[in-house]
Amino acid sequence: MIFGADYYPEQWPPGTWHEDVVLMRQAGVNLVNVNTFSWASLEPEPGRFEFAELDKVMDLLSGAGIGASLATPTAAPPAWFLRRHPRVLPVTSDGVTLGTGARESFCPSAPEYRRAAAGITRALAERYREHPALRTWHVNNEYGAHAPLCYCDRSAAAFRSWLARAYGSVTALNDAWGTVFWGQTYTQWEEINPPRRAPMPVNTTQRLDFLRFSNDEYIACFRTEADILRAVTPGIPVSTNFMVGEARCEDYWTWAGHVDYVGTSSYLQTAESDSHVLLAMYADLARGVAGGHPWLLMEHATGAVNWRPRNPAKMPGQMRRNTLAHIARGSDGAMFFQWRASRFGTEKFHSAMLPQAHTDTAVWRDVVALGADVRALSEIRSSRVLAEVAIAWDWQSWWAMEFEDKPSCDLRYVERMRAYYRALWGRKVTIDIVHPGAALDAYRLLVLPSLYLLDEACSANLRDYVAAGGCVLVSYFSGIVDRNDHVYPGPYPGALREVLGLYTEEFHPLGLGEQVLLSDGTTAGVWSERVVTAGAEPELTFASGPDAGEPAVTRHTFGAGSAWYVAARLEADALSALLAKVLTDAGVRVADWPEPVEAVVRRGEHAEYLFLINHDRTGAHRVTASGTDLLSGTVHDGSIELQPSQVAVLRRRRGDRR
Amino acid sequence: MIFGADYYPEQWPPGTWHEDVVLMRQAGVNLVNVNTFSWASLEPEPGRFEFAELDKVMDLLSGAGIGASLATPTAAPPAWFLRRHPRVLPVTSDGVTLGTGARESFCPSAPEYRRAAAGITRALAERYREHPALRTWHVNNEYGAHAPLCYCDRSAAAFRSWLARAYGSVTALNDAWGTVFWGQTYTQWEEINPPRRAPMPVNTTQRLDFLRFSNDEYIACFRTEADILRAVTPGIPVSTNFMVGEARCEDYWTWAGHVDYVGTSSYLQTAESDSHVLLAMYADLARGVAGGHPWLLMEHATGAVNWRPRNPAKMPGQMRRNTLAHIARGSDGAMFFQWRASRFGTEKFHSAMLPQAHTDTAVWRDVVALGADVRALSEIRSSRVLAEVAIAWDWQSWWAMEFEDKPSCDLRYVERMRAYYRALWGRKVTIDIVHPGAALDAYRLLVLPSLYLLDEACSANLRDYVAAGGCVLVSYFSGIVDRNDHVYPGPYPGALREVLGLYTEEFHPLGLGEQVLLSDGTTAGVWSERVVTAGAEPELTFASGPDAGEPAVTRHTFGAGSAWYVAARLEADALSALLAKVLTDAGVRVADWPEPVEAVVRRGEHAEYLFLINHDRTGAHRVTASGTDLLSGTVHDGSIELQPSQVAVLRRRRGDRR
Amino acid sequence: MIFGADYYPEQWPPGTWHEDVVLMRQAGVNLVNVNTFSWASLEPEPGRFEFAELDKVMDLLSGAGIGASLATPTAAPPAWFLRRHPRVLPVTSDGVTLGTGARESFCPSAPEYRRAAAGITRALAERYREHPALRTWHVNNEYGAHAPLCYCDRSAAAFRSWLARAYGSVTALNDAWGTVFWGQTYTQWEEINPPRRAPMPVNTTQRLDFLRFSNDEYIACFRTEADILRAVTPGIPVSTNFMVGEARCEDYWTWAGHVDYVGTSSYLQTAESDSHVLLAMYADLARGVAGGHPWLLMEHATGAVNWRPRNPAKMPGQMRRNTLAHIARGSDGAMFFQWRASRFGTEKFHSAMLPQAHTDTAVWRDVVALGADVRALSEIRSSRVLAEVAIAWDWQSWWAMEFEDKPSCDLRYVERMRAYYRALWGRKVTIDIVHPGAALDAYRLLVLPSLYLLDEACSANLRDYVAAGGCVLVSYFSGIVDRNDHVYPGPYPGALREVLGLYTEEFHPLGLGEQVLLSDGTTAGVWSERVVTAGAEPELTFASGPDAGEPAVTRHTFGAGSAWYVAARLEADALSALLAKVLTDAGVRVADWPEPVEAVVRRGEHAEYLFLINHDRTGAHRVTASGTDLLSGTVHDGSIELQPSQVAVLRRRRGDRR
Repeated sequence: MIFGADYYPEQWPPGTWHEDVVLMRQAGVNLVNVNTFSWASLEPEPGRFEFAELDKVMDLLSGAGIGASLATPTAAPPAWFLRRHPRVLPVTSDGVTLGTGARESFCPSAPEYRRAAAGITRALAERYREHPALRTWHVNNEYGAHAPLCYCDRSAAAFRSWLARAYGSVTALNDAWGTVFWGQTYTQWEEINPPRRAPMPVNTTQRLDFLRFSNDEYIACFRTEADILRAVTPGIPVSTNFMVGEARCEDYWTWAGHVDYVGTSSYLQTAESDSHVLLAMYADLARGVAGGHPWLLMEHATGAVNWRPRNPAKMPGQMRRNTLAHIARGSDGAMFFQWRASRFGTEKFHSAMLPQAHTDTAVWRDVVALGADVRALSEIRSSRVLAEVAIAWDWQSWWAMEFEDKPSCDLRYVERMRAYYRALWGRKVTIDIVHPGAALDAYRLLVLPSLYLLDEACSANLRDYVAAGGCVLVSYFSGIVDRNDHVYPGPYPGALREVLGLYTEEFHPLGLGEQVLLSDGTTAGVWSERVVTAGAEPELTFASGPDAGEPAVTRHTFGAGSAWYVAARLEADALSALLAKVLTDAGVRVADWPEPVEAVVRRGEHAEYLFLINHDRTGAHRVTASGTDLLSGTVHDGSIELQPSQVAVLRRRRGDRR
Repeated sequence: MIFGADYYPEQWPPGTWHEDVVLMRQAGVNLVNVNTFSWASLEPEPGRFEFAELDKVMDLLSGAGIGASLATPTAAPPAWFLRRHPRVLPVTSDGVTLGTGARESFCPSAPEYRRAAAGITRALAERYREHPALRTWHVNNEYGAHAPLCYCDRSAAAFRSWLARAYGSVTALNDAWGTVFWGQTYTQWEEINPPRRAPMPVNTTQRLDFLRFSNDEYIACFRTEADILRAVTPGIPVSTNFMVGEARCEDYWTWAGHVDYVGTSSYLQTAESDSHVLLAMYADLARGVAGGHPWLLMEHATGAVNWRPRNPAKMPGQMRRNTLAHIARGSDGAMFFQWRASRFGTEKFHSAMLPQAHTDTAVWRDVVALGADVRALSEIRSSRVLAEVAIAWDWQSWWAMEFEDKPSCDLRYVERMRAYYRALWGRKVTIDIVHPGAALDAYRLLVLPSLYLLDEACSANLRDYVAAGGCVLVSYFSGIVDRNDHVYPGPYPGALREVLGLYTEEFHPLGLGEQVLLSDGTTAGVWSERVVTAGAEPELTFASGPDAGEPAVTRHTFGAGSAWYVAARLEADALSALLAKVLTDAGVRVADWPEPVEAVVRRGEHAEYLFLINHDRTGAHRVTASGTDLLSGTVHDGSIELQPSQVAVLRRRRGDRR
Repeated sequence: MIFGADYYPEQWPPGTWHEDVVLMRQAGVNLVNVNTFSWASLEPEPGRFEFAELDKVMDLLSGAGIGASLATPTAAPPAWFLRRHPRVLPVTSDGVTLGTGARESFCPSAPEYRRAAAGITRALAERYREHPALRTWHVNNEYGAHAPLCYCDRSAAAFRSWLARAYGSVTALNDAWGTVFWGQTYTQWEEINPPRRAPMPVNTTQRLDFLRFSNDEYIACFRTEADILRAVTPGIPVSTNFMVGEARCEDYWTWAGHVDYVGTSSYLQTAESDSHVLLAMYADLARGVAGGHPWLLMEHATGAVNWRPRNPAKMPGQMRRNTLAHIARGSDGAMFFQWRASRFGTEKFHSAMLPQAHTDTAVWRDVVALGADVRALSEIRSSRVLAEVAIAWDWQSWWAMEFEDKPSCDLRYVERMRAYYRALWGRKVTIDIVHPGAALDAYRLLVLPSLYLLDEACSANLRDYVAAGGCVLVSYFSGIVDRNDHVYPGPYPGALREVLGLYTEEFHPLGLGEQVLLSDGTTAGVWSERVVTAGAEPELTFASGPDAGEPAVTRHTFGAGSAWYVAARLEADALSALLAKVLTDAGVRVADWPEPVEAVVRRGEHAEYLFLINHDRTGAHRVTASGTDLLSGTVHDGSIELQPSQVAVLRRRRGDRR
């Protein structure tokens, strides 16, 4: 199990490094990520490399038995490089050239950038190919998280090439983009531009394609470096740090095949009371991107971050619960940003393993104890999380749905995802987050909280799944458009009409704060629509509002399976009640455990590990479970009383059920 | 009576067109607007025209007896054109060049654009001059609605020429602009720029003139095309679609003389409970722009639009009430955007006559019924709406008042317009909306809800009107500046002091949410001021706030007439009560009819037509009225019980009073 | 004592000037500021000067015995100049070139601008060197208030030169800026840019230095002109109008040594109920910048300003109280913007001494009476305000603290300043506002409401002050970073740990609206932190929240003095109660006078003058005081009953205490 952090020795005098290593060993650190932004130091002028300082750091690490996740420093092109190649600077949709003095000041399509990145990568790989500290390569940093889209003229040229490859002919592009609308028809590739700011909203297919293109350009940047690294050090895994919860312009489904393992950052929204549920959702998403395999929590925080408006620290016990929750959901270890709090720079008020106030602090004591916890979990390494329920997630649908000019600005992708995830979490249901085109036969239930865009293949995938006995639960405004953002012919929702056994005559989005009553006495907001059943049976109807008397929730028997539709934004309690019904319909067993207790099973070759996390900081909760707690060594037979904030990891033989 | 829609056959395979025509006939459609954005299809490369597809559409229409409102496609210059002439792209006040991929990407002052627009217009006119489907020309689309101001260097040059024509000498311009303030004095025309973003607020006269200039440039674009069309097809009327309620940078008073008839779009603010009153106001404004003549509702929606944050559909009956309310106020028919809901493009979630869910829908059934209603009203064609009360409206005053650096940001042009219009609507008073310089002798009362800028000629016009026996009602912050945005010499309000018999010693705008009491126990917000009477009599005084004990509402006998002044933002009820008094003073008879009933008379050569619209969706209301209802055929003698949502159009002989 | 205004005769026909002078004399005006924006009139083409109009104005003034504060017109470069030298136009961080049509359209680093400004200054100085009206020079106008930062290429070059002078070597700059963070290391000066917009937040030391540089560039502009004026007219004082309360990008501590006397503008936040306290704070700040010497209120308003969203006028008596409060706090007179209300331009709705409604107005009568009041105070000229308590103020700390990425966005510089100032004002304590590096031995108490950045020298200054017996009161998040914005090594607050006898283990900023209880039953918001005492004694603890049971307020005996720390945002009452304790600890006597009464003493050579201002518009208040009221002539023996809104200035022999 990995335990470690981002480490920036360059920010400190070498005298500090020895203390760092001593303290790392005290905390149980076994992997540190180094060199992330050191391009300017490694290559102070074109082609001249200085590795002396990095050599010392690498030697020091290997001497202490600490592995290095060695980063290529290409997220921070040096100032001398940007001065020589000012066309590398990225440009906004407004035509503003973004400047220097921060990081990530590069256009991913700039040929000089790619050449120079390849150069420093090759030099680095050749320098450290045999170094004993080298464990893994960490390419660049947070691709696409901060300046995801460049609209410069060379991006435009690269975009045109990408389009030519994707469509073959301008005519095919005109069809796909629907350029006949507003007379945008193209006759030559050269007429096509990135979706720069225009007098009115720019063609949404063009924008979708520009997002797809930009995502591909970052993958190409990654591949440029990864190919070199794989060639030079064939045995060393290569990855980069995803930001599955934050970099919404990256489609990580398309990234997954390019990395040797999936690593991600995960920064808790500490200001939200159910932040641990959101954290769990993004952990499950990371596992989903990893195809269900173990993955790595590459960055999280011991306490406060620094970039939100207000940055609260974590409460006592919260770091431990958070870290172990990631491990519960498949991470084979945990790393922090960062090792030692910086004295300068944008992130100097970000928490670290070693805070400004040093070791006589609660944070440090908690870090050391957590290191021991992680060591105690060694045997769970490589075990798998298994789920009977899946949620479909698609970044491209998110992009398409949140362009303007929709029926309601309250249609928000993550909002519905969170609502459904939250309701399932409350039922202690373990969830896989999957692409809508994924193999689904392992699941009893598939939930589509928000899938506006659903292409023909995915639509067929869902239909086949239900026909074969699966159960699907679909929320409103899903299955509306194809991959070109064209509305499917006929009534909404074209991609799902058949399987849902209904169609929608008209959308009736509600006003800000407007509520409608449902037939069970609950209320709903944001959305109403005129559902006409064509095989489906109403389970709930609207009792007021524009669709009073008409279906709000329906169920359709389709083939050997069933398909539920929810045409309203149910309140949390109502959604939870509905899910109980649907889970029963799908044959999913649920645990009736206390609300604050998180429960996940990792299954290894010989044993299962039940993670129990009591998110209640003041109350104890009892649950029915048996096994030996790897963290405390205590044996529980039949039940366990979880103390406030307690985490237990019960080992039991495979096949035992809770 | 016209009944129709915007029609985009190019978005559909030709097979669909035949169904379109069949359904159009079923709905009673007799005019469709075609070709609006088809430049790229008609002229796929410079000078090569392809009319085959449009020929088919035109033939199909004429074959079905449906007229064509044939649009020049110049709102959407082709991509190839913009690539060849990138200087045609418009530029913002920040220097951002707006790009392609939407529509209206042209600077109205660009000579290449004007030449090319003339070219396609001439080709189109010559192609279809004899075509039997051709009923009217629709030039361009929504001039100035979306990118009204271009700040590029060629706009700058055109602006200088416009200024040279307007002022004759730089000295005259310096005087008019008050450039001595902040040392902006010009010595040569070349020193003058558009009002681009600057370190502090730019000279407001310069900005006013730039708005006037830009408005004139769009008129010049229109005239370039219209002159060609009139020369080639002398018998065919030429117009364009105004947006009287939305394109605030166009001064439609100056446009009116250039079109053969006035057509406008009107999109209901469905989220507002009194949206039908706002709709009525803009309908009256359209009639005002048309000089009281019949006009045409060129675009409205069967249900939801797509560009507001939340886009509710219309409630049952609402489309019918809305459409007929426009006809009541002078529209000789009604057209929709659009015929068939699009499958792609920015407007794909905009409602249409034929929705995505096709004909088995409430919307389609309502559309067909509405077509029959419109046919039943044929005899009212060309009849006139007559009003005894007028409201003064001036876009230029609106522009000037809403520049920054006023006594209060709560001084909003449309806010006061709506408040006064609403109060008069509630009294069932029919209103003409007129320019303040218009002939006024036909009116018993003229209301000035918000006329900050009032030039000398208009000021004299009002004075003469009152002196001759008219009654005027003026709200605060009117008559403050002349056409150069210079404060009139002496105390406020310089343009109205004499006729109002008072002056203002100091403005006392109120804080956010601050309220003051009036002597009748009501409250007011936003505004207070120290009025000193000089002939006027107080009708109401402030009872609290900075002007406690001083006049809030006054009346002045001036010549044979009277002039009222309202120095406070009265609440709706208090304003309604005041209007009752003023209407009596002016000798205007009002109907004491139930609040939700809208009532307007159109007067034809032989008969009058009383439109009664019950905006109450649940309650019936009885009013005293006689005549034959053109919609139902029922004869009413003495009174009529209007059912929920009912519309009646009672024919009675001219001269009968309700 | 000075009484006067900004005067713009150029906005009026010469016929008006004679009336102006007559009315000025009636009001007691003895100084007017002229010529501020007249460059275009004085130099209508390069090198050709026209002084005829200004000659007439100057002659008229001297003929009437009114002095001229003669402005150099360099805040408004002429349009012809900007057309010839477009590179002079300033550029934003986004790359937008700001245009013409307003004022201050110049980059302070532009060589052509500086040359031209020197030229017009020299011509002006030589023209009027002997003119009897000339009393003082007013250089430019509001330097840095509206477009404080220019990011153009020539600013970039000047910035690099400034950096080279400041740091000597790129290596030293790299260290100071911490460029090793995010790999920003520079190898040549030419690689360094202004902090233009970038993909992520730009280096904060770079931004701090850019603010320091820009401030220095404006000082250099001032010096360019001032040196000429001093050479040509050695006896005439030279100054400019500061905006101590508004131009936050100017560090007026660094300006003070360059002006012959300090003058400032002060515009009341009329919308705030305690606006008179804020006004007092900025008056004390102006005196602080003046080193405690008398200063001049160069601009304030008789009533409303025009640039806030809502611009209320002043209430009866308010202008008099405001003006005299400035004089109480050390201004030797008072000037207004402006003499006569403008008819055109951005400021036409700004109040003036002579309003649009002319002399038969309350404003004019109040102005005339105020002129008499000011004359009655002649003998207080040059007297000094003496304070036992000081507040530390540092613009550079303000800049640094309000960059993003802090623990909480609620850390606002002026917010804490106002809170502590308000509490002291309420205790009738007279306050000097000083730089944290100032000589402190005269003070019994020094308050640090918000000093995030505190350099080593200032830190030592405070330590020495307390060690020698001083008392210091420090609010949270002070003393965190050095002048490079680097966190001091070790626990927070590095610059103050020793003197406060504590350290901070972790910050615990609170959520929006979150409150914690303190041990005395009061509540606090925004901030909590884990204080670990190391010599300090808790005076108050947190009773809830993340630091329940831990210290919230502490006191430390250090050397012969004491140091208090406040780790929470106390409510106003609690802060006031705490201050009572601290003032007692510091040996400061406080007056227990009614809340609305402002009390300040100016001490002259022979007498003291107690200013008493009753800010209560409706209630009378009695205070214990004796002396002759210079305003009314009344002699008070023992006590005085202040009528609503009354101001009294009691002369008493030096040494008498209230």
